[in-house]
Amino acid sequence: MSAKFIIGIDLGGTNLKAGLLDKNYIMRDKIVLVTKKFVNKQGLISAIIFAIESLIKDNNLNKKQVLGVGIGVPGPVNYQKGIVHFLPNIPGWREVKLKGILEKKLELPVSIDNDAKAMTLAEYKFGNARKFKNILCLTLGTGVGGGMIIGGSLYRGKDNAAGEIGHLPINEEGPRCNCGGIACLETYIGNAKILKLARAKFNKVISLEELSRLASKGDKKSCAIWSSVGRHLGVALSGLVTVLNLDAIIIGGGVAGAGKILFDEVKDTIRKRSMSVQAARVKILKAKLKNDAGIIGASILVREG
Amino acid sequence: MSAKFIIGIDLGGTNLKAGLLDKNYIMRDKIVLVTKKFVNKQGLISAIIFAIESLIKDNNLNKKQVLGVGIGVPGPVNYQKGIVHFLPNIPGWREVKLKGILEKKLELPVSIDNDAKAMTLAEYKFGNARKFKNILCLTLGTGVGGGMIIGGSLYRGKDNAAGEIGHLPINEEGPRCNCGGIACLETYIGNAKILKLARAKFNKVISLEELSRLASKGDKKSCAIWSSVGRHLGVALSGLVTVLNLDAIIIGGGVAGAGKILFDEVKDTIRKRSMSVQAARVKILKAKLKNDAGIIGASILVREG
Repeated sequence: MSAKFIIGIDLGGTNLKAGLLDKNYIMRDKIVLVTKKFVNKQGLISAIIFAIESLIKDNNLNKKQVLGVGIGVPGPVNYQKGIVHFLPNIPGWREVKLKGILEKKLELPVSIDNDAKAMTLAEYKFGNARKFKNILCLTLGTGVGGGMIIGGSLYRGKDNAAGEIGHLPINEEGPRCNCGGIACLETYIGNAKILKLARAKFNKVISLEELSRLASKGDKKSCAIWSSVGRHLGVALSGLVTVLNLDAIIIGGGVAGAGKILFDEVKDTIRKRSMSVQAARVKILKAKLKNDAGIIGASILVREG
Repeated sequence: MSAKFIIGIDLGGTNLKAGLLDKNYIMRDKIVLVTKKFVNKQGLISAIIFAIESLIKDNNLNKKQVLGVGIGVPGPVNYQKGIVHFLPNIPGWREVKLKGILEKKLELPVSIDNDAKAMTLAEYKFGNARKFKNILCLTLGTGVGGGMIIGGSLYRGKDNAAGEIGHLPINEEGPRCNCGGIACLETYIGNAKILKLARAKFNKVISLEELSRLASKGDKKSCAIWSSVGRHLGVALSGLVTVLNLDAIIIGGGVAGAGKILFDEVKDTIRKRSMSVQAARVKILKAKLKNDAGIIGASILVREG
């Protein structure tokens, strides 16, 4: 019997999501675990194995029916060797040979890559990036992640480190970033910064969801925050639009939930600041795939990574 | 008899250079005309034709021995159709079907592209970019031009407009640029800006060559100017290094003549501000090909454009 299923894992700082997909990338089953419950690296690796074996067992499959396992992780990866260099938001991971460890234990082929690259593949294969050839895909969350399709293929750069749009500087001087840089985009529009702005403006703790809801009702204070986020993001993107003459930019992640006010400001800033030919060309679109984008992208790695 | 020669034309705001190259891209003859002597578009097109026909006649060739003519022009081009959209520094050119005009008159195949892309091809084929696959090539002159090799091929973007590094913003607020943008790199390090800084510092008109000569002798005022140029350029490049995980950046053009002090500042800024993996990877190199890079690059367009 030929292998008919793929397992995709989206390892995040909050949740570990595992999905069983058929050969058409339709989700047949899904398990979600809370990442922080597994206190160390070994515990988290055991949880990954548990999730994979549960999906196989619960669906009455044998391993010969599984083509392979794809995993997206939130950090830099040597994807050829399947080594996780480190995970900024999950402590204790340093040069972990995750592919080797899992293949030995599972006796299944395992592919590993950075989560933003996996999500880029998902959006290119099944989402709003489908029709284009030169694309930047962004995820706006705790950090600002990115992946690029150039000439119809995932662009990795020399060390698989391409796409780090969160660390593009938007000013010569500005806040120091965790990465060591100065005035990186992420220091202006990362979740932490937006929540800080909101707390200062509303004199209380306020969630991103609430901030988006208020903006959609026309609340001036929250609209001002989202406009400012859109302007910073627009400046960063305007430079990449000019230099890369992109067909499309796809924006996803929690912050993208702010919707129209954010997107309008991004589009307006690009139209005003990019060179005219490039500005007229580029489409700014919201990501189509939602919560399952990470699982779907990880699954794509198995056959096309 | 098979065609053994190529003619390459480097059309600049100052000079119109035409070269006869053999099949190994060795220059056999060269003609240099002063662009401004030809007062209108028609005059300049006639000069191009004159230069080509002179090279053929003076070298006792017939047209069957010429494989084709390649032309690099200082502005945006539809390279498939051979249409020059406009030339910022040469008045009167708007949507000129240069390929069609020249092919009809010359009865030779003509290829046309932007000059920075032609120079990028030259540096990739014969210069310091040879060993790399993901490269940004810069020319620092009146404007700041650029071309990119991605995955071993010239990257054009959707409209052949990729590579415009001079119009990457390095600040959210700053000087208005001729392109319509704000705080573009070119407004900080274009020739005009450097000469203005020099005039203010020395209280007299001073050339770029003199400014480079003074810096090489350790003169503090000129060193301060070149350091500042290197810092602005370094900030722009640090972002592209982080996002594109480039193998190499090649810097040429008149301003690159400032040499060590400029290159040291660029390297230092990238090392401090780019993400560590990307910063450790990228090589910052001076262009190898000098004055003839434009002619050689234009010639490459004939067979590989």
